[in-house]
Amino acid sequence: MIPVAEAFARLRDALPDFGTEPVALSDAVGRILREPLRAERDAPPFDRVMLDGVAVSHAALAAGRSRFPVAGLAPAGQPRARLLDPQSVLEVMTGAPLPEGADTVVPVEDLEREGDAVRILDVPEKGQGVHRRASDARVGDEVLPSGTRLRPAALAVAATEGALTLQTARRPVISLLTSGDEVVPPDAQPLDHQIRASHPAALAALLRGFGHCISRHRHAPDDPVLLKALLAEALESAEILLVTGGVSKGSADHVPRILGELGVRGHFHGVAQRPGKPLWCGSRGKQVVLALPGNPLSALTCARRYLIPALDAAMGALPEPPPLVRPLTPPAPHPTLATFRPLRVTSEGWEWVIPPNSGALHVPALTQGFLECPPGFSPPDLFPFYAWT
Amino acid sequence: MIPVAEAFARLRDALPDFGTEPVALSDAVGRILREPLRAERDAPPFDRVMLDGVAVSHAALAAGRSRFPVAGLAPAGQPRARLLDPQSVLEVMTGAPLPEGADTVVPVEDLEREGDAVRILDVPEKGQGVHRRASDARVGDEVLPSGTRLRPAALAVAATEGALTLQTARRPVISLLTSGDEVVPPDAQPLDHQIRASHPAALAALLRGFGHCISRHRHAPDDPVLLKALLAEALESAEILLVTGGVSKGSADHVPRILGELGVRGHFHGVAQRPGKPLWCGSRGKQVVLALPGNPLSALTCARRYLIPALDAAMGALPEPPPLVRPLTPPAPHPTLATFRPLRVTSEGWEWVIPPNSGALHVPALTQGFLECPPGFSPPDLFPFYAWT
Repeated sequence: MIPVAEAFARLRDALPDFGTEPVALSDAVGRILREPLRAERDAPPFDRVMLDGVAVSHAALAAGRSRFPVAGLAPAGQPRARLLDPQSVLEVMTGAPLPEGADTVVPVEDLEREGDAVRILDVPEKGQGVHRRASDARVGDEVLPSGTRLRPAALAVAATEGALTLQTARRPVISLLTSGDEVVPPDAQPLDHQIRASHPAALAALLRGFGHCISRHRHAPDDPVLLKALLAEALESAEILLVTGGVSKGSADHVPRILGELGVRGHFHGVAQRPGKPLWCGSRGKQVVLALPGNPLSALTCARRYLIPALDAAMGALPEPPPLVRPLTPPAPHPTLATFRPLRVTSEGWEWVIPPNSGALHVPALTQGFLECPPGFSPPDLFPFYAWT
Repeated sequence: MIPVAEAFARLRDALPDFGTEPVALSDAVGRILREPLRAERDAPPFDRVMLDGVAVSHAALAAGRSRFPVAGLAPAGQPRARLLDPQSVLEVMTGAPLPEGADTVVPVEDLEREGDAVRILDVPEKGQGVHRRASDARVGDEVLPSGTRLRPAALAVAATEGALTLQTARRPVISLLTSGDEVVPPDAQPLDHQIRASHPAALAALLRGFGHCISRHRHAPDDPVLLKALLAEALESAEILLVTGGVSKGSADHVPRILGELGVRGHFHGVAQRPGKPLWCGSRGKQVVLALPGNPLSALTCARRYLIPALDAAMGALPEPPPLVRPLTPPAPHPTLATFRPLRVTSEGWEWVIPPNSGALHVPALTQGFLECPPGFSPPDLFPFYAWT
């Protein structure tokens, strides 16, 4: 058994670069940018009025006068106006170019109207109320680095630059092969000794929540010959193949052996963790196979802990370590195994829960994610948190 | 100005119930369940073998014997087998029904094969290795309460119950009206005094990240007559109308007045917060209008802080308070205003950043969300965190 960090590193290092694809700005939320975005113009492109008020020459203000005639209006959306007489002011609107001859904006809150003039109640500092041309970025500057995860503010930046199409990380083709003779599909009526499949729904939802999808799902019976045929078929097209079950030590757990026969070279089998000890990982060329434990909570936890961040890394995302959180009560660590503990948010803080058994998802279903508690006897104060979505 | 919590409560209380709609299990991730899901069968539906190994009668083990003949195999997916002779064992596979006459499973790790017999190396407790029928839920029990957010584990539970269609919260029809004469669309080449629109991209991405969408977007010039016509048109169909800009105190900020003329009754105008002070909210019947400040970071922050959780509440979601996090350095509070601080995750922990000015999104673009720092002089240790997606 290898430690969690080592297992993660081996999976991450096994994944290839899946290349890039262009995506429309309007569809790019959650995508990973794969080219630096550069400023097409200075940002802002002109000295920009930041508040409604009047534009003044600070020198005139500094001379001690407080009453100024209003010489006109400089609205937003109009070419730059000009303050011809520095002893007057121009009314300006947020977003307007600062009039030539003015250098400061006095906000309406600090003004009193007196007919065609204004009285300035509070003398601002020079330059106040002006968002200076190029103060955020100069033309050509990198405004979003390659690897940026395209959240709302990043897409606002892209929209400002007129970047209607963005070069983003392509997502790999992921296939899922589940197994188990006792399992029937969710739309079937199970016999007394059967249960309905839950892995496909859970793993598809997990992947979808992180922007991926399962392109293809097949279910294999517990028959080595058929299992091998279905694994071989899945490996014809999958870039990533997820397998559930068949990796623990029982007599019917043939997956690692059969994968070996199909040319998949193992990177690890067994991780010092609970749940999810039997996790297996291997590669055939650029194809990566991750064989998840059959237990539903183990499979979900392993997919979230290993696959999602490894995909992020392979897709070139800037590192975003999992947030560190402090649970209300520190979980007791296991001496040698990392333990993953479902966690829910309450009004008091983060609270971990104990599923009644490793097969039941009713309790984890009401959690927001899980904590990773490292092995050892003196637990730290803060633990990495992995959200389910 | 009212406090943040009061503004949130007024918006939340103004929103109606948007009703429910059926959604396929495969499309339900992120949705809010609006009916309790009940167990169709006991869970598990039979005494289920949890590990590969042998099924035994514990009484025979307790009598001190350690070597037992293997009487046969009880695989998963087959009707319940029977251990005829309690002095023998049956080989069992994970997922199989526990054979009649057996009560305990000894895992393969604790066995040694000796021809047609096994030697049991470690005597388990009675009942070990068996996931007891109905130990998670009895038929008819509520396994997911109404209001559950459908994350992967919840969808696994739904799949197990054969719930192929789920009654979920319907999402409201959201319209967006932006304004500003200086703004051109992202696909236009701006003149020197113009900038490209960023609000629509940012707000659409924010809403999409939380499962919503903007059904309709119009841009209004800074002309009260046209603005009123476009507001009236938007109110013909929107259940929620977002407006950006036009709510601060300047001469061109007509939105609250015009909305009043259109029969929209104000709930608040001005919140003790930075950024986002001028936030405005009102209702016309069941329609709700949220007028966001024109500053891009303010608009995004207000939409995330108020609209997203208020929609969750209106859609019947079980409360999920924002997680409380401890930043690496405590932000200095403002004496009277709540401050929202963009936050990024680093390998050391949570670090807040200061945007160089209120108009620039380059710095917030690389953050994961923001902290809410309450007003006052003694900052708490932990602050609510609102993720951008």
